[in-house]
Amino acid sequence: MSNNLKKPVIGPSQKVAHFERDVWSIFTPLAVETKAINLGQGFMKYDNSICFLNTSTVTKYLLSFNPPDFVQEAANQAIHDVGSNQYSHPRGRPRLRQALAKSYSPLFGRELDPESEVIVTAGANEGMFATFAAFLDEGDEVICMEPFFDQYISNITMNGGVPVYVPLRAPAKAATENISSHEWKLDINELRSKITKKTRMIVINTPHNPIGKVFDEEELIAIGDVAEEHNLIILSDEVYDRLYYEPAKQVRIATLKNFWDRTITVGSGGKSYAATGWRVGWLIGPNELIQYSLAAHTRVVFCVNSPCQEALAIGLEKSQDLPYFQDQIKAYTKKRQILSAVFDELGLPYTVPDGSYFILVNTTNVQFPNNYEFPDILESRAKDFKMCYWLAKEIGVVAIPPSEFYSKENRNLAEDFARFAFCKSDDVLEEAVAALRKLAPYIKK
Amino acid sequence: MSNNLKKPVIGPSQKVAHFERDVWSIFTPLAVETKAINLGQGFMKYDNSICFLNTSTVTKYLLSFNPPDFVQEAANQAIHDVGSNQYSHPRGRPRLRQALAKSYSPLFGRELDPESEVIVTAGANEGMFATFAAFLDEGDEVICMEPFFDQYISNITMNGGVPVYVPLRAPAKAATENISSHEWKLDINELRSKITKKTRMIVINTPHNPIGKVFDEEELIAIGDVAEEHNLIILSDEVYDRLYYEPAKQVRIATLKNFWDRTITVGSGGKSYAATGWRVGWLIGPNELIQYSLAAHTRVVFCVNSPCQEALAIGLEKSQDLPYFQDQIKAYTKKRQILSAVFDELGLPYTVPDGSYFILVNTTNVQFPNNYEFPDILESRAKDFKMCYWLAKEIGVVAIPPSEFYSKENRNLAEDFARFAFCKSDDVLEEAVAALRKLAPYIKK
Repeated sequence: MSNNLKKPVIGPSQKVAHFERDVWSIFTPLAVETKAINLGQGFMKYDNSICFLNTSTVTKYLLSFNPPDFVQEAANQAIHDVGSNQYSHPRGRPRLRQALAKSYSPLFGRELDPESEVIVTAGANEGMFATFAAFLDEGDEVICMEPFFDQYISNITMNGGVPVYVPLRAPAKAATENISSHEWKLDINELRSKITKKTRMIVINTPHNPIGKVFDEEELIAIGDVAEEHNLIILSDEVYDRLYYEPAKQVRIATLKNFWDRTITVGSGGKSYAATGWRVGWLIGPNELIQYSLAAHTRVVFCVNSPCQEALAIGLEKSQDLPYFQDQIKAYTKKRQILSAVFDELGLPYTVPDGSYFILVNTTNVQFPNNYEFPDILESRAKDFKMCYWLAKEIGVVAIPPSEFYSKENRNLAEDFARFAFCKSDDVLEEAVAALRKLAPYIKK
Repeated sequence: MSNNLKKPVIGPSQKVAHFERDVWSIFTPLAVETKAINLGQGFMKYDNSICFLNTSTVTKYLLSFNPPDFVQEAANQAIHDVGSNQYSHPRGRPRLRQALAKSYSPLFGRELDPESEVIVTAGANEGMFATFAAFLDEGDEVICMEPFFDQYISNITMNGGVPVYVPLRAPAKAATENISSHEWKLDINELRSKITKKTRMIVINTPHNPIGKVFDEEELIAIGDVAEEHNLIILSDEVYDRLYYEPAKQVRIATLKNFWDRTITVGSGGKSYAATGWRVGWLIGPNELIQYSLAAHTRVVFCVNSPCQEALAIGLEKSQDLPYFQDQIKAYTKKRQILSAVFDELGLPYTVPDGSYFILVNTTNVQFPNNYEFPDILESRAKDFKMCYWLAKEIGVVAIPPSEFYSKENRNLAEDFARFAFCKSDDVLEEAVAALRKLAPYIKK
């Protein structure tokens, strides 16, 4: 009756079988192995050892920053309260939804209903996964801008969708001089040319990872008009919405024209409160749309960590009176300054980010030795993988090769760049600056 | 160019469009509305108001129990440590994986490798979702025993799978006398008859929700042999593995014959430590299998709440020396006794559970008034929905109608039962007992 082999050879589904080895699984162990300063992954410290090492080597090295005291204290309170340790409503805890509505209503220019227009998710990531699950049928297409946050792609394909790419392009002068992140441009006609009958959604990311671009009103209206014209859902990933730098200003596509009706906005507690490990995110949008994200989310995770929801609720409430977000922007502006100064000093051109916490540096003029030996695993990748590998091994700083965030066809658009995260303590950044100075002899003048 | 309507009418994907209104969305608001004692959902308290009400009515009523002090304390410590608030490794935090390996190795009779045989997931639920994603292609069939935990079904269908049902059957005498949960039986030939070329997985749940059945070695070997013969993956949901009652004993299918090679076992921090809102679960199994669950999990949620992982790690470490699990079993044995006594008193036969924290009561002899008015939403459901509705409204105790946990075809097998959860404080249970005594005049002798 059975036509199977006796010895089990049980393979994966098509959904996961095609996953390529991701950039993190190469560069995070490399950070550990080389003890290089990790400006790779965007978490708020560079203590590789405690979270990414083998269990046998749990030693702390150097910590950077933590959620603010008032949020830590709130978490502590929540842990001692019975209700805050048990299942939450799948929509999210009432206090957090209420705090989110209160915090975001002025930013959205409308009274958000915490009962129907806000959902708390297990990180922004799961919120997006649930939304793709909610709307994508087999073969439905989703427009993604390159560079993209890598999770989008698997989240789309796991739900039967097909990512369709349209690049953001840097001006040619990016190889020779500093540019503003705003100069990376979407060609709206190129976007239009990618729309088919199967197109269902378009993903926006603003402030953008890794470019730092904050889309302006005109750009968002152009995108929204295309969505309107083709009845597309807009999924606006705004997880860095509290991290933009003067004179840039966060514009929300959900607030423009009638785009609210077709837009789901994604936010992140981890990004807002330096707590990337809490895994609390949220979706904001019209009930007509997010009810379906809720349906999927309820099945995927049922609900979200309760004590950290409670803590973030209190954090948001207190942030109404405290200048927490303003102070955080000031702190990040300084961090951006610390890190970018060394690239000025070295004469390496970079993109000045208007938001998020990454600097894309153009490495065209960095010349590593011709005979340098690279592991085989890098052979199939664009040349930025080699550059970043060499940086980690020889300069002692980990950066991420941004070609990971492009489709294979367009990887050449990114291979001259490296992404450095500056969401680290000032001390760590100063140390990185000192290490990066060692680059000087390798730079072609 | 667009053939869509001008006014957006954006509907859900097929994955979520067919979701029926779930039992929780009927009975949880009912608990709130009626102020009935909620023995419905299996969370450790019955304070409806704080987690399930509209945000406008956040008042605490009566709390039951909490995670143990040493786990709360550990959580508090974690919140104040920078590393514990940032991203964890997608596999889970090293300390927790190490603690899990140490705690479970003796139970599995093998040295579990924390680097490759343990994955921490965003609750057991997400671990199962990720595993279905990892192995199911469109049309692949998954054998589920009825009654099933309702999330299984949507988790399977969202990943393209097709649930195939085989019931556990109670003996006929269950209508007239108490039976042991062990007397609910799977017909192994009936199971065999459901296997097709598309069958890919079989889901086991032991201790079983809602029956409380703890499968014995002989039963598990019979199931495992079928899996072996047809090269099926066994997904063993053992979230209640720390909650079984003497003389029952938790037997793990992964420890029998060579079944380890094809078995993924699911565990739950929330169930083990009275913290259902922490959303920390785990998968244990051979790397050859769980590497694919990990691949899916990494994309669905990336990683799990870090401070609560750290707290559970410390909890597991301390439980090596403290009789926490033994004490918890004693406490639950008493709770089972408190609640079951009233059904003895009323002469309502029930299933004595060997594990988990539910009592299935046979309500055949309970007669609610003929002319009682029920909301329309119950009309399409089996008669246990009406029984449970009436219980909440008139008796003041919420139970869950178990036909929710059957396929439509087999709902009649459950419509004479109601599920009561006893994972509540003794006070709450005593209050429920007092309320349930009001049933006496409605019971046919």
